[in-house]
Amino acid sequence: MSDPCCPQVYLLSDGTGITAETLARSLFTQFPDLAPAWHRLPFVQTAGRLAAVFSRVESGPQPALVVATLANADLRAELRHCPVPVVDVFGEHVERLEAVLGTPSQSVSGRAHGIGDHQRYDRRIEALNYTLEHDDGIATQDLSVADVVLLGASRSGKTPTSLYLAMNYGLFAANYPLVPEDLARDGIAHMPRPLRGLGRRLVGLTIAPQRLAQIREGRRPGSRYASLAQCRAECAAIQEFYETWRIPQLDITELSIEEIATRVRARLEGER
Amino acid sequence: MSDPCCPQVYLLSDGTGITAETLARSLFTQFPDLAPAWHRLPFVQTAGRLAAVFSRVESGPQPALVVATLANADLRAELRHCPVPVVDVFGEHVERLEAVLGTPSQSVSGRAHGIGDHQRYDRRIEALNYTLEHDDGIATQDLSVADVVLLGASRSGKTPTSLYLAMNYGLFAANYPLVPEDLARDGIAHMPRPLRGLGRRLVGLTIAPQRLAQIREGRRPGSRYASLAQCRAECAAIQEFYETWRIPQLDITELSIEEIATRVRARLEGER
Repeated sequence: MSDPCCPQVYLLSDGTGITAETLARSLFTQFPDLAPAWHRLPFVQTAGRLAAVFSRVESGPQPALVVATLANADLRAELRHCPVPVVDVFGEHVERLEAVLGTPSQSVSGRAHGIGDHQRYDRRIEALNYTLEHDDGIATQDLSVADVVLLGASRSGKTPTSLYLAMNYGLFAANYPLVPEDLARDGIAHMPRPLRGLGRRLVGLTIAPQRLAQIREGRRPGSRYASLAQCRAECAAIQEFYETWRIPQLDITELSIEEIATRVRARLEGER
Repeated sequence: MSDPCCPQVYLLSDGTGITAETLARSLFTQFPDLAPAWHRLPFVQTAGRLAAVFSRVESGPQPALVVATLANADLRAELRHCPVPVVDVFGEHVERLEAVLGTPSQSVSGRAHGIGDHQRYDRRIEALNYTLEHDDGIATQDLSVADVVLLGASRSGKTPTSLYLAMNYGLFAANYPLVPEDLARDGIAHMPRPLRGLGRRLVGLTIAPQRLAQIREGRRPGSRYASLAQCRAECAAIQEFYETWRIPQLDITELSIEEIATRVRARLEGER
């Protein structure tokens, strides 16, 4: 039951535990040789439930570790009874912030990922609806209200990135597939109508043809669509389109959705 | 330029800064009277860029505070030159983890939200594709491979929750709108074909009719679809459907997407 390479990590929270999981996964990237077993314990909001958690942790495999984001200060005080080491995230940082900000904190459970700020929450849902309705050029008539419009080849990450930007940041993120007519040599002199006037809100995703072929192969094995020749031709035509229209480019070949989204957002903020 | 109620919070990272932002926003929920101004500084990967950040922070409005998630230990050492208070997230926790785990950390920048574990990343993208293809009952033929199928009235949060589960947890999350035929009194004796055999993978979302009417009103003002009478009738019929088929219910009236997703996930993990 005991394997030092596979620590049991309990993500303990009086809310969703999203902050605990985000932080713990981040920290464990610094220990690449360890393969932690993750245990999520969200919505632990009473001393009784916390005591039950401690029993479970104690009787489970070892080594074990608790990463706790308990907003409630009374509950946090109970962490001293925890039978295994604890990373008490709020305990450590909230006190620090109180000192720095010169303001006492107000300990209330489970606020971080609740509806919280209604205006901000509603905007995220609205943005997500907008993004779903403007995915892959489904609707192009009101791109003018978009915060950002991603361009790129099919399967270059436009849709996941748009959804991420909408869901997490409340950005009205649309995406537009560049179809052959947009890219045809004698048509390139004309900017596609839906994209006119969007200026710096356009971001042109690029991707290495080899990587694009690999992704498409996973979707439609052996197809012309997934062939390296086809991917090369599309990437070249798209590149030319970006250059003609001076659309800022972002190479996503080695980037995750989160990294693409962060770079897109940084550019939009830089434009303001 | 100085407003103690509006501290300037710089989210400094050598990666995306997602961990820094998640943690900082969580911590500031404990200071509801403050209205922090957020400044994102992702991908700061050299001592030179860090020094530029320090100048910017120093010359900007005060009070200011840096929340740093620098994975690189050399860069982290530079934080001692920061002209304003720093919450050094990795510094504090990584050392603690080293002691607890008895293993030295390996400091490499920007790993937390990169592609990282390819298998896990690819699964998330696959899950997102699946979810988009199985949103709102678009495709019902292969619900059998779903990890979870959310049921509920139109605008009860099925789509955003499915997308969240797929994007963040790599769950194949489908959703199925209960149409009038599914709910017709003489049809209720028959489980809709696509849902048969899914057992505990079905989750029935419920919502207070008043809240549903309010959400729908935002989408289609003054419509029959948004009327309280219509919402009441649908919610009652759906409730009856869940009870007939003993589908576990989840009331989402006061929950955020993150909270719904966490509860759904906890149930699935409880079933294993």
